[in-house]
Amino acid sequence: MSDFRSHLAQICDLNHAAAVLEWDQETYMPSAAAEARAHQIATLRRLAHELLVSEKTATHLEKGSDESSSDDDALYRVTQRDFDRAIRIPADLVEELAETAALARQAWRTARESDTFSTFAPHLEKIVELNLRKAEAVGYDEHPYDALLDEFEPGMKTAEVANVFAELRDQLVPIVQALTAEVKPDDRMLHRHFPHDAQWDFGVGVITDFGYDFNRGRQDLSTHPFTTTFSISDVRLTTRVDEAFFNPAFFGTLHEAGHGMYEQGVDGALERTPLADGTSLGMHESQSRLWENLVGRSRGFWSHYYPKVQNAFPDALGDVSEENFYRAINRVENSLIRVEADEVTYNLHVMVRFELETEMIEGKIGIADLPEAWNDRIEAFLGIRPSNDAEGVLQDIHWSLGAIGYFPTYALGNLMSTQLFDQANSDIPDLSSQISSGSFEALLEWLRTHVHRHGRKKSANEILTDATGTGLSVESWIHYIRRKYEDLYGL
Amino acid sequence: MSDFRSHLAQICDLNHAAAVLEWDQETYMPSAAAEARAHQIATLRRLAHELLVSEKTATHLEKGSDESSSDDDALYRVTQRDFDRAIRIPADLVEELAETAALARQAWRTARESDTFSTFAPHLEKIVELNLRKAEAVGYDEHPYDALLDEFEPGMKTAEVANVFAELRDQLVPIVQALTAEVKPDDRMLHRHFPHDAQWDFGVGVITDFGYDFNRGRQDLSTHPFTTTFSISDVRLTTRVDEAFFNPAFFGTLHEAGHGMYEQGVDGALERTPLADGTSLGMHESQSRLWENLVGRSRGFWSHYYPKVQNAFPDALGDVSEENFYRAINRVENSLIRVEADEVTYNLHVMVRFELETEMIEGKIGIADLPEAWNDRIEAFLGIRPSNDAEGVLQDIHWSLGAIGYFPTYALGNLMSTQLFDQANSDIPDLSSQISSGSFEALLEWLRTHVHRHGRKKSANEILTDATGTGLSVESWIHYIRRKYEDLYGL
Repeated sequence: MSDFRSHLAQICDLNHAAAVLEWDQETYMPSAAAEARAHQIATLRRLAHELLVSEKTATHLEKGSDESSSDDDALYRVTQRDFDRAIRIPADLVEELAETAALARQAWRTARESDTFSTFAPHLEKIVELNLRKAEAVGYDEHPYDALLDEFEPGMKTAEVANVFAELRDQLVPIVQALTAEVKPDDRMLHRHFPHDAQWDFGVGVITDFGYDFNRGRQDLSTHPFTTTFSISDVRLTTRVDEAFFNPAFFGTLHEAGHGMYEQGVDGALERTPLADGTSLGMHESQSRLWENLVGRSRGFWSHYYPKVQNAFPDALGDVSEENFYRAINRVENSLIRVEADEVTYNLHVMVRFELETEMIEGKIGIADLPEAWNDRIEAFLGIRPSNDAEGVLQDIHWSLGAIGYFPTYALGNLMSTQLFDQANSDIPDLSSQISSGSFEALLEWLRTHVHRHGRKKSANEILTDATGTGLSVESWIHYIRRKYEDLYGL
Repeated sequence: MSDFRSHLAQICDLNHAAAVLEWDQETYMPSAAAEARAHQIATLRRLAHELLVSEKTATHLEKGSDESSSDDDALYRVTQRDFDRAIRIPADLVEELAETAALARQAWRTARESDTFSTFAPHLEKIVELNLRKAEAVGYDEHPYDALLDEFEPGMKTAEVANVFAELRDQLVPIVQALTAEVKPDDRMLHRHFPHDAQWDFGVGVITDFGYDFNRGRQDLSTHPFTTTFSISDVRLTTRVDEAFFNPAFFGTLHEAGHGMYEQGVDGALERTPLADGTSLGMHESQSRLWENLVGRSRGFWSHYYPKVQNAFPDALGDVSEENFYRAINRVENSLIRVEADEVTYNLHVMVRFELETEMIEGKIGIADLPEAWNDRIEAFLGIRPSNDAEGVLQDIHWSLGAIGYFPTYALGNLMSTQLFDQANSDIPDLSSQISSGSFEALLEWLRTHVHRHGRKKSANEILTDATGTGLSVESWIHYIRRKYEDLYGL
């Protein structure tokens, strides 16, 4: 291993070790250990950061590579980008953001529980201010939000997101209006009793069929589901189980497995390099949403799995027809909570957050006015209005973590998911009949070839363009929604 | 926090993070992840080592403390000792030992499975040679084995161990001969069916009664039981369950809980310093053996717990009297496998290993002659002879890990356990009736006060002397064995 690669490998080791400690914290750690654990994670992350911004990294980057393989080119290019970003943000700003976020997270929890935005407001004010300083430190051409967005969706610009979202809104709002004017499918059977172990086993069975590799991963319980990577050979999922509701465990498991298969599919040659990771949060979300929605909420999928799910939950689903179940899991309605939204209205929730974030960063909207602005915007997009801030501006954890610029990647991922899935269907002519017979090898292989294996060697835009011939666009997703829901609702 | 303390805290964080990764490897990690995990652990341990032997440590140690609290004195003294030891062992020797051990472990497994010592012999040869180089690097006054022993039992000398063991052997062998000449108690009921979950729950119930704090720890399954510490607030145990044998899970759980309560009992003020650890392996073992044997195999303990264990395992123990159960769990016999030996003969197994280790280090015994020497020595001590090397020289993992000088601490721990327990009984006059009523607060509090809270601030010898008025000796343990087994066997 070259000196540069072994230097980068150490940084990877430290970050992956921190990920193990974070995973343990969410799954098995006794709660009294939180303070000591926070110190340990901070030490690992700080050492990783110090190694990244070290003289050694700088010297290697200046000298450049002796070889000229595509792997090596990408390694230098991506490391340079990470280095530039890391070195521009002063250490005391990083520290201030971490400390502010730690306090903000506590304040957010209290504020949400007691529905008092004013408890959280001063923390959010500081987070916005620190994010602005971060944007100035990183630098940008057009919009300070560009510098923030770039952390989560490298190369993406605020203006592009705004354009895409404007087009999406124009086309989506009339669809939502038409769909929500219809009689909603009955979904009460999803709220019957679904025993814990049967939910666990059914989900595990399906993602094993998908191709999530349990020899190189595992699934555990946690309050908030997530996927985390310790190496290409160790990519773990978590899920949560609600015995009174079928959806969270099942669709959550498919969703996380989509993230997990992305990370498991990275080329083994990239192990212990910064290239062994998803290329952007949008591309990551495209994988989770593809398996969760495009596969897991499709007619074909359930034509294979409905007898199995009935068999797993005879008491809850024995008297429910496949068609009624399919309609229930695809019920569309205007709702207030993003994480519970259906796939049609979900993007509208994201757009509201994107608009508010950019306006906060531009200083166009003050923190004190945010709850009102949130409610107005939700009403404008979704036709309903939150009755309190807990179901409004206080519902998401992201801002309290210090993250501004994260939300749009959820919607970008939805758009990418159908673009990639359309192409997979075109390249694998009988894909839909494969899915209807519970066979996913060809789909996973297609995703591995075109998306997963590249890791960060290709940008999200390169992956999209190379795989589908076009960059990000809304047509594919709108077409998918229209086709699926016109069939479902007989519009 | 002073600059020195925050420097030491980082080292602690790195070592504790490595411990989390090691725990995960033994409990939950998918097996395919072993190679990546090995890199991660090596990186963390190496960075911790580099920080310990850094110029920064040296400068602080030279300058000395501004304060003169007892904590600070101990911190400088113990860090100086760790620093001296670490800096004397060349980095390439450390690396060679690690690499040799990694290969040796594989070879040992193969050798044990196929009963071919020759497969392991060249690895052991190299391990002895590297340990000799290590001893020379560390330095010693009298015996190279002193330098190795010191890693596990700081301050203890080979000559002292040899003297103590000689005395122990003289007194113990006639006792063993007398006991093994008697009719052995029937212990077949311990090999009936003990359901997994009932074993788990019964063990957890007892160690909760002991005072092991599940709010600052947890218990998981692993192939080989161990205790590991991530912070004073996070000390974890593992156990294994054999449904066809009562002893391994139950006594293993008590044993590990003894280790765990020691680590949980360290003074919170020592957190994130090198003082927050057991002071020696012998003292550690004294705690595990005290709870496992002096409490957990005592008449008084079972007068309280026997109805409970019958209730937990009605099919296996419903028809067994308390007396017969008590006699079964205290059955003494000459056997070949150390980890399965009873508390009376156990020390003889340890003495054999100590003698062979010192002779290997002195060059008095060649590796090729070791199997024969092992068998001869076992026969001399225990009166039975292994029929193959798998139940002879190949039974223990320690040498394959590169560890020479570890074994004696097992027997030293046994000796210390009764010395401390005698004093506790003397300081708490009704301790035995407390134990007979399932009350352990006073005992744990005594151990906390005299042993646990000090961490590494006091040496094992200081703890013993301060608590009991005398240093290490064999009388107390011999007296305990004589009294207990004369009663049991009516000698």
